[in-house]
Amino acid sequence: MSNRVVLAYSGGLDTSVAIPYLAKMTGGEVVAVSLDLGQGGEDMESVRQRALDCGAVESIVIDAKDEFANDYCLPTIKANGMYMKQYPLVSAISRPLIVKHLIEAAQEHGGTHVSHGCTGKGNDQVRFEVGFRALDPSLEIIAPARDYAWTRDKAIAFAEEINLPIEQSTKSPFSIDQNVWGRAIETGFLEDLWNPPTKDLYAYTEDPALGNAPDELIISFESGKPVAIDGRPVTVLEAIEELNRRGGAQGVGRLDMVEDRLVGIKSREIYEAPGAMVLIAAHQALEDVTVERELGRYKRLVDARWSEEVYDGLWFGPLKRSLDAFIDSTQEHVTGDIRIVLHAGKITVNGRRSSHSLYDFNLATYDTGDTFDQTAAKGFVQLHGLSTQIANKRDREA
Amino acid sequence: MSNRVVLAYSGGLDTSVAIPYLAKMTGGEVVAVSLDLGQGGEDMESVRQRALDCGAVESIVIDAKDEFANDYCLPTIKANGMYMKQYPLVSAISRPLIVKHLIEAAQEHGGTHVSHGCTGKGNDQVRFEVGFRALDPSLEIIAPARDYAWTRDKAIAFAEEINLPIEQSTKSPFSIDQNVWGRAIETGFLEDLWNPPTKDLYAYTEDPALGNAPDELIISFESGKPVAIDGRPVTVLEAIEELNRRGGAQGVGRLDMVEDRLVGIKSREIYEAPGAMVLIAAHQALEDVTVERELGRYKRLVDARWSEEVYDGLWFGPLKRSLDAFIDSTQEHVTGDIRIVLHAGKITVNGRRSSHSLYDFNLATYDTGDTFDQTAAKGFVQLHGLSTQIANKRDREA
Amino acid sequence: MSNRVVLAYSGGLDTSVAIPYLAKMTGGEVVAVSLDLGQGGEDMESVRQRALDCGAVESIVIDAKDEFANDYCLPTIKANGMYMKQYPLVSAISRPLIVKHLIEAAQEHGGTHVSHGCTGKGNDQVRFEVGFRALDPSLEIIAPARDYAWTRDKAIAFAEEINLPIEQSTKSPFSIDQNVWGRAIETGFLEDLWNPPTKDLYAYTEDPALGNAPDELIISFESGKPVAIDGRPVTVLEAIEELNRRGGAQGVGRLDMVEDRLVGIKSREIYEAPGAMVLIAAHQALEDVTVERELGRYKRLVDARWSEEVYDGLWFGPLKRSLDAFIDSTQEHVTGDIRIVLHAGKITVNGRRSSHSLYDFNLATYDTGDTFDQTAAKGFVQLHGLSTQIANKRDREA
Amino acid sequence: MSNRVVLAYSGGLDTSVAIPYLAKMTGGEVVAVSLDLGQGGEDMESVRQRALDCGAVESIVIDAKDEFANDYCLPTIKANGMYMKQYPLVSAISRPLIVKHLIEAAQEHGGTHVSHGCTGKGNDQVRFEVGFRALDPSLEIIAPARDYAWTRDKAIAFAEEINLPIEQSTKSPFSIDQNVWGRAIETGFLEDLWNPPTKDLYAYTEDPALGNAPDELIISFESGKPVAIDGRPVTVLEAIEELNRRGGAQGVGRLDMVEDRLVGIKSREIYEAPGAMVLIAAHQALEDVTVERELGRYKRLVDARWSEEVYDGLWFGPLKRSLDAFIDSTQEHVTGDIRIVLHAGKITVNGRRSSHSLYDFNLATYDTGDTFDQTAAKGFVQLHGLSTQIANKRDREA
Repeated sequence: MSNRVVLAYSGGLDTSVAIPYLAKMTGGEVVAVSLDLGQGGEDMESVRQRALDCGAVESIVIDAKDEFANDYCLPTIKANGMYMKQYPLVSAISRPLIVKHLIEAAQEHGGTHVSHGCTGKGNDQVRFEVGFRALDPSLEIIAPARDYAWTRDKAIAFAEEINLPIEQSTKSPFSIDQNVWGRAIETGFLEDLWNPPTKDLYAYTEDPALGNAPDELIISFESGKPVAIDGRPVTVLEAIEELNRRGGAQGVGRLDMVEDRLVGIKSREIYEAPGAMVLIAAHQALEDVTVERELGRYKRLVDARWSEEVYDGLWFGPLKRSLDAFIDSTQEHVTGDIRIVLHAGKITVNGRRSSHSLYDFNLATYDTGDTFDQTAAKGFVQLHGLSTQIANKRDREA
Repeated sequence: MSNRVVLAYSGGLDTSVAIPYLAKMTGGEVVAVSLDLGQGGEDMESVRQRALDCGAVESIVIDAKDEFANDYCLPTIKANGMYMKQYPLVSAISRPLIVKHLIEAAQEHGGTHVSHGCTGKGNDQVRFEVGFRALDPSLEIIAPARDYAWTRDKAIAFAEEINLPIEQSTKSPFSIDQNVWGRAIETGFLEDLWNPPTKDLYAYTEDPALGNAPDELIISFESGKPVAIDGRPVTVLEAIEELNRRGGAQGVGRLDMVEDRLVGIKSREIYEAPGAMVLIAAHQALEDVTVERELGRYKRLVDARWSEEVYDGLWFGPLKRSLDAFIDSTQEHVTGDIRIVLHAGKITVNGRRSSHSLYDFNLATYDTGDTFDQTAAKGFVQLHGLSTQIANKRDREA
Repeated sequence: MSNRVVLAYSGGLDTSVAIPYLAKMTGGEVVAVSLDLGQGGEDMESVRQRALDCGAVESIVIDAKDEFANDYCLPTIKANGMYMKQYPLVSAISRPLIVKHLIEAAQEHGGTHVSHGCTGKGNDQVRFEVGFRALDPSLEIIAPARDYAWTRDKAIAFAEEINLPIEQSTKSPFSIDQNVWGRAIETGFLEDLWNPPTKDLYAYTEDPALGNAPDELIISFESGKPVAIDGRPVTVLEAIEELNRRGGAQGVGRLDMVEDRLVGIKSREIYEAPGAMVLIAAHQALEDVTVERELGRYKRLVDARWSEEVYDGLWFGPLKRSLDAFIDSTQEHVTGDIRIVLHAGKITVNGRRSSHSLYDFNLATYDTGDTFDQTAAKGFVQLHGLSTQIANKRDREA
Repeated sequence: MSNRVVLAYSGGLDTSVAIPYLAKMTGGEVVAVSLDLGQGGEDMESVRQRALDCGAVESIVIDAKDEFANDYCLPTIKANGMYMKQYPLVSAISRPLIVKHLIEAAQEHGGTHVSHGCTGKGNDQVRFEVGFRALDPSLEIIAPARDYAWTRDKAIAFAEEINLPIEQSTKSPFSIDQNVWGRAIETGFLEDLWNPPTKDLYAYTEDPALGNAPDELIISFESGKPVAIDGRPVTVLEAIEELNRRGGAQGVGRLDMVEDRLVGIKSREIYEAPGAMVLIAAHQALEDVTVERELGRYKRLVDARWSEEVYDGLWFGPLKRSLDAFIDSTQEHVTGDIRIVLHAGKITVNGRRSSHSLYDFNLATYDTGDTFDQTAAKGFVQLHGLSTQIANKRDREA
């Protein structure tokens, strides 16, 4: 069987030049696969054509926006997915979906290899390759940037050498990954942790200091899924898009963090994820009202572990699946409305209502109508603290 | 021995009237103990005198501000202490300190009983009583609001009956607990979860929408402890006070949440804690730079558990002490500077520098000077994902 | 509506005398409900008749053995359910089933009250009452032993006073609870923790020192459920019964422990649970072969938490249900055979085989045929340890 | 600087032949370092001489038995260290100590490289290399078995080629690692998981079926450390040695398990660790009496994580150190005596006494003298179950 490399193709310089390069290195053909995950920018047809211009024997474009929203962003909402309590897994959840479509393309088009453009010091190589081997270990993996030390300079030289029809735009100083769930930015001057981000980094969000009037909105959930905004029904994708727009206008969802990569180093990352941050904030506020205390306490641990597994490239791992089973079982009653104010970069929840609420006005109120039996409390407190009391007595005596 | 009740005295109507009431119910005397925890308001001497006017045989006022900051707020900073990821334990950490001083007063002044003004449906009764029994189980506990169904109306009637020299101010609709670490507000109309908070609730913070110019500041830590702001050395107390002032001016630190009380119900709570929120945000950002990945992951679990233990009234429990041992051991290198911008209710970290940093520019950079060995990554990814690969193979075959 | 007390009736002296006593105290009638959970001893018809003789207006006997095995013991097997790593939850899992049938009887027979015979210092009161309130909070709860300080001496005096047709057997010094899943024994001389158990405590197990020949057996599981022993198909109930017999003959499953009760005290407990211990040992050994590493690590935490929830009387709590969802999702491939030797009190697993195994001979072997790619290991080790390496460097320099 | 390889030298064929081989491959000299960890067998002086005979320029033998017992086995006792709840970390805790001495030797003797004999599919390579890089990343690492695919056959051929004075004993079918804490055995026929172990595998333990009379003993601990057996003071080393002897005579401490290796595969392992298993059983039983409930519950999680970190080669990792801080803080009161019976492979705890006990006879007893306040229980149960009650009500209504 002759070699056929199925490449995760972004349309950018690096993966464009990789097409002839991979063909040369393997002595085979290249199939380009591009996913529309709502990253915006160039239209997908131009991307598709460019791959062919660069020598791909097939160039496949897949509109995966709804699939991404429903099968990857929604589980992240349910898990309040935040790595290190901050990062909503923007790139981490897109990789397994790309993997899935690459493997399908490889199986359909006789692929022998799969390939991605990631370097050897990031997380995405892990997410790609663990996914590839989970779904089809018979495919060989090529990561030119890592395995051939393929750099941008080499790519440009090679493009010139073979007269590749690629216009090299002025080199952007930014390394960017974006999709409808958010946008990740790395760039040289941020590698000094003391440097603040500059305004030109951002594309999904306005400057929070602009002084726009606050935007109040109501998000409705059914069993953990956002189903309406301000009363208008939405798909998950539409919810993210609308909140990207409205949150972005308020400068909401900017993140500046130092992150622990799976490969063992710390790195500085800037993210913008207005829709993601608003949806998770609303979802969590609704859980606070509809999820019982002990379940809520444990779910916070499970959410954190889920986020680590997904960050660590183990989307297809068995633990991820069982954590999903736990999380899904908690969402049945996460139904109701959350009112939120977006303003000047800040998300403020100021109202919740739910027919599935566990909040009981009559138990909580200090006014007339209180049904809480205070006489029970005395004994409760006594036994709740008994083992502490005994331990302190022992400590004094010992 | 005749009865002597040592009362946690706030100076307010309820505990003032409790003085003659407790004397009557026990046939004994009352010693009032009041702590200055930076709650502001009335001067402590007036509080002291009022207790005597109400019939206390002793009235003790203790300036515990620094003790509170160093021994209660600082451990909370080190633990990034947040119950349900939101509430910085404002009242929860003040109760054990009041307990400590009440027990000391009881032992010094021949107390036979200790007493507090809390109801039977809140958390504070638990924090008081578990603390009392941990430190001195020989003292009897009286909680008139709970055990005698002692209400404000009854208190006023009793005050009139005995001609107590208490002016009943116009009844505030708010139930408030405050100290230098923050302020907690409950009030009737917030018991409808759909009602937003009103502006008159707040005292520590300005309206975030005011449009003040952003305030940029640098907080310096040594081993987890804030030691300077903008280069000026501060005590922990001074750090909290300055950040209350500067954060409050920017509307930072307002919280609106539905909380799981230990007694089994959910309740709506409004908090203001500008200094606490700024310090914890800065501390956490510095940990992200100075704490190793696996330790950071585990510490986040320990932090959450610590917060639950403290919230649940188990400050004096053995688990809390061992969690402290864990946390303390993680703080040695949490040393460095964090630059923060406060604006319109939002805390933004935008710079960090530390001589104890684990961030390695040469490993992280994508520019010249990169020392990261990318050839190691290929094997790493392969074995990192091996058990996932084997499991997926088995699943397909089964 | 006149009072009708639905009583959890064991047939013993205490609950027998409780029948007329509860009738007297409530001015109503008593319905006795008895469950056959495989506890053995007296036949259930005698038990049923005794309740009537003591004045019950209805006496209901329910054969719940299979229900208990399938819906309560099996989840415990799947969770490797052990409180404090030792106790297989013998009484803890029987209470929720009794609760379920009591509530059904109350709803069918017009019950206004439910009642149990437990004291106020044990765990079972919690399991009963949390269950009652979870399933039907409209029923009033009476616990005569606790609420009326109803003791055995009072019961005997009352029985004589009203000429109750109860023969008082020689008072056993043992307090026993037993069902097919195991047997729990408390008795006065064991309250001195230094005293060893005596031989007369045991009923389900022979003396392990007897020197019987070892018994080797093969237990087959399908998706976590025991389905055959030595090739003969069995129900879960039959599996427990057979292993009680064969394990008991070898003295297997005796436990002597100091246990942390939910009410805050420590207590000495002796258990016998041969079938439970053998089944859990076999199940766990099969999980070791069929469950992936990270899932296995996390499941051990979930198993422990599950056991605590069940021990703490929260069988009907929402967390228990979500932990079940997690656990169930892990059991799909727990299919295969475990060979076990029972001898002299010891359970030894010495063989496993499974078509769902994750053990891969070709990866594990050191002989010819090894397919493990050792070249991957060098890079793996390097990056696996990188954050530790960086941290140690920092520590030395700081 | 000329090359100097510091080799972890066992005295066996593989590392003996590695001496000239490493010299050849690096063009340098080899320093052999051997530790006496109580592994028994050959005397250490013969081992030392053999390294010289094979061409080492220096051969260093270190008696590290007490250091191993005090600094590696004792922390394992305190952590009840068991990987996958079964394996007491026999090899896992010896590697970091060997690393420490190798690094010291390298620094003292001008080493440029460190070397070990492990393969690329086991855990020990990880433990060695992560340790080397943690303590001195300037040293280069050589693992001939992995990096040069150095096998036994190649070693023998090379030995003959250079006339190395090594007698090749009949090749043992077993691969063994042993020290005073235990013994690990791998061998070909056990790679079929259905094969039971054979009797000739064992060296530290007698056949449990031998029918020796039971051996009863009392182990005394102070703050978690074993200090006496049957009243005779012992060092930690002596405790392990005596219990190896007495436990071994009873066939105690044999393990047969399928283990999840860090490199991603499952493997079958046989262990013997009589002293370790007896000490951990006794220690845990004493914790059950002296450690408070919530602390005990959390410590079981910490113990499990500690065991995973140590198993995974992260002894020198920052998390391990902070887990140690937690564990150490729990041991202050783990003081007292445990009575144990060893018989026929089984460890049975049947008595405990401690002046630091948290067991309170008066609270636990059902006899006269009971001081437990049962009236407190009613309210306790009510509020303990309140959130479950509310959740079930909501579920029914929803």
